[in-house]
Amino acid sequence: MAAVVRRGFGRVTDALAERLGRACARVSTNLSIRDRHGDDESYHAAMPPDVVAYAACEREVVAVVRLCAEARVPLIPFGTGTSLEGHIQAPYGGVCLDLSEMAAILEVNEEDMDARVQAGVTRGALNAHLRHTGLSFPIDPGADASLGGMAACGASGTAAVRYGTMRENVLGATVVLADGSVMRTGGRARKSSAGYDLTRLLVGSEGTLGVITELQLRLHPLPAAASAAVCTFPTLADGACAVAALVHSGVALARCELLDASSIAAFNAYPKEAPDMQLAPTLFLEFAGVSDVAVAEDARIAHACCADEGGGDFQFATGADERRRLWAARHTLYYASLALRPGSRGIVTDAAVPLSRLAELMAQTAADVTAEAVVGPIFGHAGDGNFHVILPVLPADPPDYVARLRRINDRLIRRTLAAGGTCTGEHGVGAGKRSYMTLQHGDAAVGAMRAIKRALDPLNIMNPGKVMPDADGDGEGQAEKSAARAELNE
Amino acid sequence: MAAVVRRGFGRVTDALAERLGRACARVSTNLSIRDRHGDDESYHAAMPPDVVAYAACEREVVAVVRLCAEARVPLIPFGTGTSLEGHIQAPYGGVCLDLSEMAAILEVNEEDMDARVQAGVTRGALNAHLRHTGLSFPIDPGADASLGGMAACGASGTAAVRYGTMRENVLGATVVLADGSVMRTGGRARKSSAGYDLTRLLVGSEGTLGVITELQLRLHPLPAAASAAVCTFPTLADGACAVAALVHSGVALARCELLDASSIAAFNAYPKEAPDMQLAPTLFLEFAGVSDVAVAEDARIAHACCADEGGGDFQFATGADERRRLWAARHTLYYASLALRPGSRGIVTDAAVPLSRLAELMAQTAADVTAEAVVGPIFGHAGDGNFHVILPVLPADPPDYVARLRRINDRLIRRTLAAGGTCTGEHGVGAGKRSYMTLQHGDAAVGAMRAIKRALDPLNIMNPGKVMPDADGDGEGQAEKSAARAELNE
Repeated sequence: MAAVVRRGFGRVTDALAERLGRACARVSTNLSIRDRHGDDESYHAAMPPDVVAYAACEREVVAVVRLCAEARVPLIPFGTGTSLEGHIQAPYGGVCLDLSEMAAILEVNEEDMDARVQAGVTRGALNAHLRHTGLSFPIDPGADASLGGMAACGASGTAAVRYGTMRENVLGATVVLADGSVMRTGGRARKSSAGYDLTRLLVGSEGTLGVITELQLRLHPLPAAASAAVCTFPTLADGACAVAALVHSGVALARCELLDASSIAAFNAYPKEAPDMQLAPTLFLEFAGVSDVAVAEDARIAHACCADEGGGDFQFATGADERRRLWAARHTLYYASLALRPGSRGIVTDAAVPLSRLAELMAQTAADVTAEAVVGPIFGHAGDGNFHVILPVLPADPPDYVARLRRINDRLIRRTLAAGGTCTGEHGVGAGKRSYMTLQHGDAAVGAMRAIKRALDPLNIMNPGKVMPDADGDGEGQAEKSAARAELNE
Repeated sequence: MAAVVRRGFGRVTDALAERLGRACARVSTNLSIRDRHGDDESYHAAMPPDVVAYAACEREVVAVVRLCAEARVPLIPFGTGTSLEGHIQAPYGGVCLDLSEMAAILEVNEEDMDARVQAGVTRGALNAHLRHTGLSFPIDPGADASLGGMAACGASGTAAVRYGTMRENVLGATVVLADGSVMRTGGRARKSSAGYDLTRLLVGSEGTLGVITELQLRLHPLPAAASAAVCTFPTLADGACAVAALVHSGVALARCELLDASSIAAFNAYPKEAPDMQLAPTLFLEFAGVSDVAVAEDARIAHACCADEGGGDFQFATGADERRRLWAARHTLYYASLALRPGSRGIVTDAAVPLSRLAELMAQTAADVTAEAVVGPIFGHAGDGNFHVILPVLPADPPDYVARLRRINDRLIRRTLAAGGTCTGEHGVGAGKRSYMTLQHGDAAVGAMRAIKRALDPLNIMNPGKVMPDADGDGEGQAEKSAARAELNE
C-alpha cells in the first residue's frame, strides 16, 4: 500500500469517525471496504480513504461535508468506482463519501422529457425505470455507472455522436459546496442564458468543487425505427476516413464505432451472445430515425460513404435483439481486451482529435503498439474523433514492459495535443492525466481552474489532488508518482 | 442622460485617454460615438462610456485591459451593440472596447468542420465566407451580431432546436483576463473531459470574466435537402401543443417557430418579399435532411402531429428562394413588431419553459397583453420552449402605459420561474434581468457566481454591474433603476 502523505490535511481521528457515524447512515473503517473505495477499474494504484461514509440523503451529505471542513479532512465522492483515471484515490487520506444509497428516481416528466434523480442512481436503473415511457437516457459509457459519477466525470460513450455527452444532457444539479451550503443550478428549460453556466462547470469537475446530490437530466424519445450494420475495411485508416465522410454527409448516426483487427480478436475470444466476426478493421454503425424509410435512407447514404473508402458490404442487424447483442458485445470490449492477458488491469488511453487527423493518429498508434510489441487493441467512438488503446498490465510484468506501455500512452497524448485534440475525451483527468493539463491548456487556463477551485473550496477539501496540478507543482509529475506507487503496491 | 455613479471606480482622465490612444488602434471621446456604444437595441437607457477604444489585435486588447486594471476603470467589450438587456451600458463610466475591427476569419478547416475567427466577425460575414464549402455556422439570433458578442451573451435563435446554442457550438476561446493575461480554453476535439469547462463558463459571461478575442467554432454541413412549411391553428395553445408533439415525435426539426395572430399582423404590415399570411396563430417549420425522401418523411409525420392538435394544411415553401424569403421575413419580426408603434423601442421578454407548460404560459401571456390593452406580439422558438413578447415603448407613452408593460414582463418572469423555466432563454442577463437572478437561482448559486467573478476579476473592472446583483444588494432592484434612468433620458 502507498504511504499516505498528509500535506497539511487533518487526519480522521476516532472522534471524527464517531461524529461521522452519527451524522450519516453509517461509516466503515473495514480495510477491504476502504480498499474497494480507493481503487477504480484501471491500473492506477489503490489509495484507500481513512473511512467510508454512506449518505442516504442531502442532509447527511451536508453534515459530512461540514465535519470534513471543520477538521480540514479531504472528502472524496464515490458512485460506483468505475472511473479509469484514479479519480477515487485518497492520496491524502480522508473520507470517501459513498452516494450509492442515494438512488431514488425523484421525478420523470414524460411530456417534458426530463427526469430528476439522486446522484447514486445508475444509468441502467434509470433506463429500466423508463422502460414503458418511450423515453431513454442514452448517455452510455459502457459501465453501469452512477449518474452523479458520470456527470462529475463528464462521461459520454457510444451515443455521444447523436446525443452529446453529459454536458449536453444535464439540465441542472443540486450540489453541496465545501462550506456545507446547498446550491441548485440550471433548471428545467431546454436552454438558458441566465448567468454563469454553473451546471456545465460542475460537469467534469470530478468532485473537486462540491458533491453532486441530484441531477435534472434531459431524456430523449426512443427512435421509432433503427438498424445497425457492420462494415469491414482494408486498413484502420480507411475506416477512419469513412467515418469523416459519414459525419460530413449529415447522416443521422446513432452510433459510430471503429475497431481494429486486434479488438475484433478480443471480441471473438470473449464470451458473448453475438457471433464471431471477420478479423479486419470494422465499423459498427447504428441508424435511428422516425420511420423505416428514413432509416433506410441513412443506411443507403452511409453505405455509399463507406464503399468510397474501400469498405465492404454492410452486414445488417435489424432486429432489436440482434442489435442489443451486437452492442452488448461492443460494451464488453474493455473487459475482452483485458482478458487477452488474464488477470490484467488496463492503462486506458482516451485521445480525441479533429476528424481529419483521426486516420493518421489511429494508424500511428497502431504502428507504435506493434513496434513496442505489446498487446493493445484500439477502438473507439470514431464519430467524435475519440478512440482508446487498451494496454493490459499484469502484476508480474517486468518494468521494461510497463515502461513501453507508458511510452505509448505518453506519445499518443503528445501527438493528440499537437493535433489540437484532448488527452481525455470522456474519462476525465483524475490523478492520471493531471500532469498533462498544463501542456494541454497552458498556464493561464490552469491558473483560472485553480482560482475557481480556491474560490469555491478555499480549504481544498473536495477531492484534492485531482483535475489540475497544484500551484506548487504537485501533480505535474503525477503520472510518474502514481505509477511508482502502483509498483510499490504490486 | 443618466448621471454616472462611480462606486469606487477610477475615472478616465485625459492622461489615461492619451495612454489608451497610444495603446490601441484609436480612441474616441466623441459624444455621439460614446452614446451609440452605451445604447443597445432595447428600451434600456443609454449609459455611454467615458471613452471608446478600438482594438485591432490581441496585443492591443491586452494593453487596454492593463491600463484599465492599473486605473481601476471599468472595461466594457462591444461587438455590434445588438444586445437587448443593457449589456453595453456603462453605469460606472469607463472604457468601451470596440472589437468590430478584429474581424479576421483566421482558419476554416473544412474536413474538421470548424473555424477560428476573431471576436468581431459577424455571423453573416462568416457564413458569406463559407458559401462554397457546403458548411455553415447555423446559430442565428436574428441580428447580424458579432460572434464574440453572441458567445458572450449565450445567444441562440431559430436554429437552436436542431444545432443547439452558442454553448454547444463554441469549441474554444481566446480570452484576455482582467490582469491582462491571455487564456486559451477548449480545443478542436468535438468533445473533451479535460478539467473545468472554462469555455462554457465564458459563454454567457457577458464580458464580466474577460474579453473574448478569438473563437473556435463548430460548423455544420448544409443539409442536402430541405423544405419549409407553415400551418395555422385555432388557438395559440393548440399550436404550442403541436410543438410538444413534434418534439416528442423525433422529427428532425431544423426550425420550429410559433407566432400569434398579432405577430402575423405585424409581419403582414411590414415591408417584406414574402406574401401576406392568414391572420391566425401560425407555426413556421423547417425540415432538413440527407435527401428529399428523408425530408418528406419528416414533413409527413410532422403534418400528422399538427393535424392531431387542430392544425390546418401545410403550406410548403420548397424552393430555396421561397424559404429564404419566409425566414428573412421571420427575422424582421422584432422590427416589424416595433413598427406597430412607429418610433418605439422594445421591452423584449425572453421566457423559456418546459414544453408541457408552453401552451399555458403563452396563453396566459396573451391574456395578460389583452387585459392590459397594450400592443404585444408573441412569437418564439417554440421547439425550445422559448418565446418572446415584444412590448414597444414610445418616448411619449404616459407612465401608466409603461407601468403596464413592466407588469406584463414581471408577471411573465414570475410565472416562468414558478414553472421551472428561465427568465432569459437567449438574451442574457445584462443589467435588465440582474434583479431576477436570486429569484431564479437562489442565494447559493448567485454567491458562487460572485465568488468566481471575484476570483477571476478581483478589481471588478470587467463589465461591472451586469449578470448578477452585487453582494451589497446593488442590482437587486436594477430593472427599476434602469427604468427610472430611462425616464430621465426621455
